[in-house]
Amino acid sequence: MKPVELLVCTKCNRADALGDVALSHGTQLYEELAAEPPEGVKVTPIDCLSNCTRSCSIVLRGEGRWTYVYGNLHEGDHPDIIREGAQKYAATTDGLVTWRERPEHFRKNCMARIPPMEIPE
Amino acid sequence: MKPVELLVCTKCNRADALGDVALSHGTQLYEELAAEPPEGVKVTPIDCLSNCTRSCSIVLRGEGRWTYVYGNLHEGDHPDIIREGAQKYAATTDGLVTWRERPEHFRKNCMARIPPMEIPE
Repeated sequence: MKPVELLVCTKCNRADALGDVALSHGTQLYEELAAEPPEGVKVTPIDCLSNCTRSCSIVLRGEGRWTYVYGNLHEGDHPDIIREGAQKYAATTDGLVTWRERPEHFRKNCMARIPPMEIPE
Repeated sequence: MKPVELLVCTKCNRADALGDVALSHGTQLYEELAAEPPEGVKVTPIDCLSNCTRSCSIVLRGEGRWTYVYGNLHEGDHPDIIREGAQKYAATTDGLVTWRERPEHFRKNCMARIPPMEIPE
């Protein structure tokens, strides 16, 4: 099976956060996920996924798969949910997890999905 | 130079639209762009980019390039702006058009950007 990648925006600060933070919420989320990555998934920090108004933000992708962008994530509340969703994504061959199988936060906070380079019929 | 693709969501109906439409706004936008494609860009219809609350939606992408998702597009008002942005995107090698060069609608309605599979240093 081709490798799956979880991109985490490290520039994100949550829109609902007040005041300055020493370490951006996105960096906190990245460090949490990198310390305990979902099985078979590579966690990669990215300096801005441009989903700033609905941060924190992640992307799930892999060659030959649909790419998904998720937002409105919380560095403290959501790492386990992200791991669950990433593992379900990694368990498919095309990135398509059925609606009811997806974590609720993923269902409600999908920003976009993009087909693989070779679009299936 | 590698080929550039403009994906157009054909399922979109604008969030501000009232009532049923015979042909979805996204399909109208696709047909407009396909009839007069930006130079050197392949226009491809996609059945749902999952950016439904900020539709109509498009994606610009190409191998080795950053992928961009744009939303809040109007099938009547925005085809020329999309063509302009797509041609500027196609004129780069990595998909990165400088902020001031991008059409204003693109600057204000970027939903996400995703790095190429091989992330540059």
